Amino acid sequence: MREVASRQELRDVLQSWQQAGQKVALVPTMGNLHAGHLALVTEARELADRVVATIYVNPTQFGVGEDLDNYPRTPESDRTDLRQSGCDLLFAPDEDTVYPRGLDDAFKLAAPPGLTSILEGKSRPGHFDGVVTVVARLFCLVNPDVAIFGEKDYQQLLIIRSMVEDMGFDIHIHGVETVREGSGLALSSRNNYLDSQQHAAAWNLFAVLQETAELGAVAGADFRSLEQQAEERLKAHGLAPEYVAIRRARDLKKPRAGDKALRILAAARCGTTRLIDNLELNRACNHDD
Amino acid sequence: MREVASRQELRDVLQSWQQAGQKVALVPTMGNLHAGHLALVTEARELADRVVATIYVNPTQFGVGEDLDNYPRTPESDRTDLRQSGCDLLFAPDEDTVYPRGLDDAFKLAAPPGLTSILEGKSRPGHFDGVVTVVARLFCLVNPDVAIFGEKDYQQLLIIRSMVEDMGFDIHIHGVETVREGSGLALSSRNNYLDSQQHAAAWNLFAVLQETAELGAVAGADFRSLEQQAEERLKAHGLAPEYVAIRRARDLKKPRAGDKALRILAAARCGTTRLIDNLELNRACNHDD
Repeated sequence: MREVASRQELRDVLQSWQQAGQKVALVPTMGNLHAGHLALVTEARELADRVVATIYVNPTQFGVGEDLDNYPRTPESDRTDLRQSGCDLLFAPDEDTVYPRGLDDAFKLAAPPGLTSILEGKSRPGHFDGVVTVVARLFCLVNPDVAIFGEKDYQQLLIIRSMVEDMGFDIHIHGVETVREGSGLALSSRNNYLDSQQHAAAWNLFAVLQETAELGAVAGADFRSLEQQAEERLKAHGLAPEYVAIRRARDLKKPRAGDKALRILAAARCGTTRLIDNLELNRACNHDD
Repeated sequence: MREVASRQELRDVLQSWQQAGQKVALVPTMGNLHAGHLALVTEARELADRVVATIYVNPTQFGVGEDLDNYPRTPESDRTDLRQSGCDLLFAPDEDTVYPRGLDDAFKLAAPPGLTSILEGKSRPGHFDGVVTVVARLFCLVNPDVAIFGEKDYQQLLIIRSMVEDMGFDIHIHGVETVREGSGLALSSRNNYLDSQQHAAAWNLFAVLQETAELGAVAGADFRSLEQQAEERLKAHGLAPEYVAIRRARDLKKPRAGDKALRILAAARCGTTRLIDNLELNRACNHDD
């Protein structure tokens, strides 16, 4: 695995691959890699000739009072993991490389409010604008054929897909299923913040989503009531829910009669740690539909 | 010359050129082409194997009360002119093709205030955000090796150059000198709005800039006083100046001692028509520098 930090080194490697007619897959990460990230790299290997992973903790997607400064950074083990997963090139830029004009004087991309004012966007104002701002830069710099993102950040995946379609980037966005611990807890760098007691409670986020998804799949289910019951159950397990929401899978709008492909999404605090998760919810046919 | 309107047709043509290893130059326009635009196409021919021109009157760069609806549209003569100038491909998309989510739900790029709050940006709030939003889309869709812009819109040229550098697009931005009538009046689609009497007065914008540039090149010149005198002279010629400004050529900041490469820029109304122009101003060495 090669490692580059500058734009010019990156371009040189990419150009040699392009001249050889090789397809490139991009796996953008913020580092502190776990099996969820490595599943993205493994998937990337299947989709292209060359895999580029990026490690960059992007300041513009963290809000005031969020965990930018404390975000876990583990460059040594990340390098080893990426090499073992078959990554060809690690691009680990510093802030001046990603934002050469500085953060205040940067060109900034804004996602439309319909996608960013709900769910995660409501809890984390400005978060998705920061995400699309950095992802657009990585797309310009790497110009990959395919880019791979995890379904764990489902709203982010949809927003990036929308950005690519709207702006006209010629890049295929590929989503990969969430990787979980045996308990069902979705892997996340933020799980590092949990003490053992919190860790033992955290898996209930998955358990409650799974039960709710099963109840929601039944014809005629009352989603609003199911969402409220799920929040109550999370509280009973010692978690502090921010939202539990059953939405259309393709655009996260509230489901109408006839919408079958849904998604249940949730955010909850476990102590001071904010956890998110989501699951597929395929609604059964209703005689009214 | 081929002509395409859809993203897919565009991609197909570009892909065939890419596979043949041909370099592509892009000339983005809003149509109503004059000799200034055609000079861009001629220059593009020198810089690449293939020339793509786009014609799209971009609504997001027009402010409320500006001339979007009345902006001159002359597709037939544009086609003829482009063909004769050696353009290979005309991409003339409609609004749904450029903004597939609609204007309200579009992803929007914002340029930093340092570049957009001055001169043209001050007179036309939101204008440059609209420009970079559409130009970034055209760059994503065409992915050219080089893109050509006129120096007549000097601030726009600098902002697009900054955007490309900041975002990391692998595109060379090439500026082309302003084309003028014999009188010195810079060619512009908006000259169409001038009646014959206004047209006879309009060339004074160039004449005053040229005189001021000569005076400004002298060691020890007082720029603030020259700007004010230039505004007075424009008024005496029946023009209503919005600004006359002597700035650093590279970033449009106010010149400091030692800055040699300057630019003089102006906007003035002639009747209801808004005209802009700019010239190089190379300051002589001062004994103090």
